Amino acid sequence: MALDFYHGHGSPYSWRVWLALELKQVPYNLTILSFQNEDTKKPEFVAINPRHTVPTIVDDGFALWESMAILEYLDERFAAGAKLYPGDLKARARIRRLAREMEQYLGGPIDKIVDELFWKGDAPPDKGKIEAERQLVKADLEYFAKELRGNFVAGDAPCAADFVLAPYLGYVSRIDVRKPETKLTELVPPALAAYRKRVEALPYYDKTYPAHWR
Amino acid sequence: MALDFYHGHGSPYSWRVWLALELKQVPYNLTILSFQNEDTKKPEFVAINPRHTVPTIVDDGFALWESMAILEYLDERFAAGAKLYPGDLKARARIRRLAREMEQYLGGPIDKIVDELFWKGDAPPDKGKIEAERQLVKADLEYFAKELRGNFVAGDAPCAADFVLAPYLGYVSRIDVRKPETKLTELVPPALAAYRKRVEALPYYDKTYPAHWR
Repeated sequence: MALDFYHGHGSPYSWRVWLALELKQVPYNLTILSFQNEDTKKPEFVAINPRHTVPTIVDDGFALWESMAILEYLDERFAAGAKLYPGDLKARARIRRLAREMEQYLGGPIDKIVDELFWKGDAPPDKGKIEAERQLVKADLEYFAKELRGNFVAGDAPCAADFVLAPYLGYVSRIDVRKPETKLTELVPPALAAYRKRVEALPYYDKTYPAHWR
Repeated sequence: MALDFYHGHGSPYSWRVWLALELKQVPYNLTILSFQNEDTKKPEFVAINPRHTVPTIVDDGFALWESMAILEYLDERFAAGAKLYPGDLKARARIRRLAREMEQYLGGPIDKIVDELFWKGDAPPDKGKIEAERQLVKADLEYFAKELRGNFVAGDAPCAADFVLAPYLGYVSRIDVRKPETKLTELVPPALAAYRKRVEALPYYDKTYPAHWR
């Protein structure tokens, strides 16, 4: 039986899960919720997930949210498929560590840049703040570039950490399209620029790309 | 062989790991790093963990940081001991989901309250901001109170989510001692106040309590 997957375009958290479902070839029913229409706040969704956040999955009546909990669940539940946490104990620990570091040290500064640029209403963005966060993004893009082990973070196939990293690289490009003056893309080191092309070449990447970003 | 555990008193992240090592009765060599003395920034520690964060463990030459990655590692590495992620697939997913929600929805607002109260230098705390975060803490303490299943989050023994929640309850009390005007303790619902006493009664809790908070 296919599981239900509730997604919102543009959520880096939800994007991870979509990529994971595809990698593992898990059958799913996709529901796209619109943030603009406040779909996630509608009673029928709140009844499934009281936090009304995406991603949310419902697997045979079991509702689960929080993206990293979902990735762990999918890897255990569909153990026969490709692995999100491949390798031995230490390799798996490294993937979990890197995924968390990406959220904290790359996702954190990107969020702050987005807040400055897009969520301040009529107030002008604070250029000093943006530049400070931009330097953090730069340092961590360089850090993660050194953590590739082959084509991806943990070898020649994508793992959970790749599905945390890839949406952030998507964000970096997207911000650059909307606000070229931020010059975020030029912070991406060559190793990660090449990596990004490999991610984009995954056969399922295109369909997970936010529709309104095209 | 005992593993090395690098801890900093007062870090809710590091506190989790100490409680977990004790629950699982894993042999460890404890090194307390002082934030005040900037021990975590000293070259010998940066050589172990380039993020220079606590908690950090080194197990037979393998260095690992990020508290939740460490808890998962400990549970796999010392599988014969008490379980941090007990139960079936869904039970484990629920523990991971709750642990992440606690970090986000309880830890987040507590951090902001701490920032307002203690990290603004000579500037006065913004009472409006504190009250807004206080209301979030209240709502989430009530949310988590309903998530107890027996004495603890996942039954009659502590699990990983308890070791995320317990340090935050410690923080709530600690803030109240330092800044009684915040009245944070009165936000703790009776079920969680009783729970906190059970946590404090764990035979290993006392020694993990931040020394400078006494």
